[in-house]
Amino acid sequence: MKGKNRWLLPEGIEELLPEPAARLEQLRRELLDLYRGWGYQLVIPPLVDYLDSLLTGAGHDLDLQTFKLIDQMSGRLLGLRADMTPQAARIDAHGLQREAPSRLCYLGTVLHTRPDGFAGSRSPMQVGAELFGHAGAESDVEILQLMVATLGLTGIDDVYIDLGHVGIYRGLARDANLDTEQEAFLFDALQRKAIPEISEFLAELELSTTQRERLAGLATLNGDSDVLQRARDLLEGSGDSVMAALDNLQHIADLAARRLPDVSLHFDLAELRGYQYQTGVVFAAFVADRGQEIARGGRYDDIGKVFGVARPATGFSTDLRSLMELGNRQWPAPAGGILAPAEDDATLTETIASLRTAGEIVIRQLHGQPGNVAETGCDRVLHWDGSQWVVQSLGA
Amino acid sequence: MKGKNRWLLPEGIEELLPEPAARLEQLRRELLDLYRGWGYQLVIPPLVDYLDSLLTGAGHDLDLQTFKLIDQMSGRLLGLRADMTPQAARIDAHGLQREAPSRLCYLGTVLHTRPDGFAGSRSPMQVGAELFGHAGAESDVEILQLMVATLGLTGIDDVYIDLGHVGIYRGLARDANLDTEQEAFLFDALQRKAIPEISEFLAELELSTTQRERLAGLATLNGDSDVLQRARDLLEGSGDSVMAALDNLQHIADLAARRLPDVSLHFDLAELRGYQYQTGVVFAAFVADRGQEIARGGRYDDIGKVFGVARPATGFSTDLRSLMELGNRQWPAPAGGILAPAEDDATLTETIASLRTAGEIVIRQLHGQPGNVAETGCDRVLHWDGSQWVVQSLGA
Repeated sequence: MKGKNRWLLPEGIEELLPEPAARLEQLRRELLDLYRGWGYQLVIPPLVDYLDSLLTGAGHDLDLQTFKLIDQMSGRLLGLRADMTPQAARIDAHGLQREAPSRLCYLGTVLHTRPDGFAGSRSPMQVGAELFGHAGAESDVEILQLMVATLGLTGIDDVYIDLGHVGIYRGLARDANLDTEQEAFLFDALQRKAIPEISEFLAELELSTTQRERLAGLATLNGDSDVLQRARDLLEGSGDSVMAALDNLQHIADLAARRLPDVSLHFDLAELRGYQYQTGVVFAAFVADRGQEIARGGRYDDIGKVFGVARPATGFSTDLRSLMELGNRQWPAPAGGILAPAEDDATLTETIASLRTAGEIVIRQLHGQPGNVAETGCDRVLHWDGSQWVVQSLGA
Repeated sequence: MKGKNRWLLPEGIEELLPEPAARLEQLRRELLDLYRGWGYQLVIPPLVDYLDSLLTGAGHDLDLQTFKLIDQMSGRLLGLRADMTPQAARIDAHGLQREAPSRLCYLGTVLHTRPDGFAGSRSPMQVGAELFGHAGAESDVEILQLMVATLGLTGIDDVYIDLGHVGIYRGLARDANLDTEQEAFLFDALQRKAIPEISEFLAELELSTTQRERLAGLATLNGDSDVLQRARDLLEGSGDSVMAALDNLQHIADLAARRLPDVSLHFDLAELRGYQYQTGVVFAAFVADRGQEIARGGRYDDIGKVFGVARPATGFSTDLRSLMELGNRQWPAPAGGILAPAEDDATLTETIASLRTAGEIVIRQLHGQPGNVAETGCDRVLHWDGSQWVVQSLGA
């Protein structure tokens, strides 16, 4: 804890120095402009909130990931936001109370008690978009398009999207009368695609052969678009909710294939991201050559209910800092500045002001300032040529 | 805690809905662009940090205002940043390690355990700029100029600036051999300009009449620029550090008067904002017709030392949300969007894309969407005129 190391940051907590901060700011603006163009309005949810409000409708994982604080004003427990999606849902349900669909976006730091995701960060810069108030496939696909556009802006072009639908497993579990514990056990085994374990478990339950085949079969339903046909063969004759979920997934897949022709779509009916929270399609984007998940989302129709208005909801989110590190976007060298003399001269002051208005960086020399010009980031100087102030290259 | 009220935010914690969020984003961009033009580079300090790092060099007040957390990874105490200035100083000293002056700016939410400042917020959006590595009056005045420009951008034009200098009181206290307790007592009485209390206190100390008059006189040294002359008369013959501080303040006042001719300067030699932390000039900006402090700053040369490099430092900061509420900047009505039909038609898709690229908001209609068009914020529609898609006013 001596010397330099004393000022190390806590594990997984990042600060951004000027160069990466400028890139992040640039991306931030481009992303918010992109979302604005699609009608997504920026909202700024609070960094801390009452804990019950932050965790409402979310699962146990979010609870573990949330830092807790005592509020000295109210004596109540506060949480540092670990996910902005529930906050956006509250803003839609409680703050806006619209009948028409709301399109909201957000961008800000969230904090996690433990590192997860890319590079073990505990302070991801979460950016995302949510569409409230529409239940059909079009809103899910609009969100998918926006997710792909987000990745494209950051220079992540070669992605594939993994699509699943929690309604299929949920419907099959209900049709088979699984209790909560059985549903959770099988869910866990499916996530791991532990086929022998699944068979063994199902053999012990009072189920028809068809029911067993359907539940076990989910673990094999992953791959390209033929998965949907195989699913239809396997699930034919299941309950209405299962068939409706499969139809919904098919509809989304068809529309996504049409609107995102360059993106490869994968399917995995046993991949049930955010099962406690999601209610329909679930998806994640992966960098093709790394197999690393970089963005995720899906439908979560029930969340708004506790906030006063039960609205359909779909959205995605990702970590802007991860995108910046993984993307291969080419960044130009930082713009060089113009060093202006220290003297107080009205013409000089005017010249500086107009250069700044034109987008130039102009740094005023300070009497007796230490260090060399290169460290100031300037590549030009303001020079009096006898009749006016002119910008001159430092090399000249 | 039932119904709507259950989702109230904690006291002093704010969320921003779309309209104010859009304004804040606009201001954010303009401010960062302004700072960039002056050579101030954006840095993004972490939201949480080890507590000792956050509080180093800062006073007791900041400790009380800082939320504490236990880090599950290290077992150490973390703090939520309550002020970004010490973080910027650490970035300069430890992260950048330049010899030439560094100009840094930052913008982000800080959290306070108790409400303070304007409107009792506990989550101000702190924005500020710091100049490290130069000790002269020019850097203080550059910071003052930037503070005034910041206020101007937000529509706060009628401001006055209150200038003081902690070196004057500090030097007088040292010359009078006051111990820490005496210095703190007198400091407190001076802040309150409690003249009888000051006289009584000074009468009990072993001081020369001149020393008593100088210390007591500080409480009367406030007003317009004649204060500096009165101070010179009163303090003539004081120790070198007092006279150097007075000269420094005079120099800053002269330069500020020249560079900021439209701003009224007030002086108050007993106003010692951030005394534990500041080392030279201290200043605050007030809205003229409200007498409300809206921005503050000053010189704090010693802070970098504990981070490895003792550099001169001067800076200002303010709360962007307060500025937005107090400023009389005229905001245009939010831009209306264009509602596009739901159908999937290649020409339509192209038209939408090019409208968005041109900066328009285009919202895709969703099949069966509830609510009315007005709620979507659209004032125009895309309409097929038989040969192409045209934008048509909703009134037409």
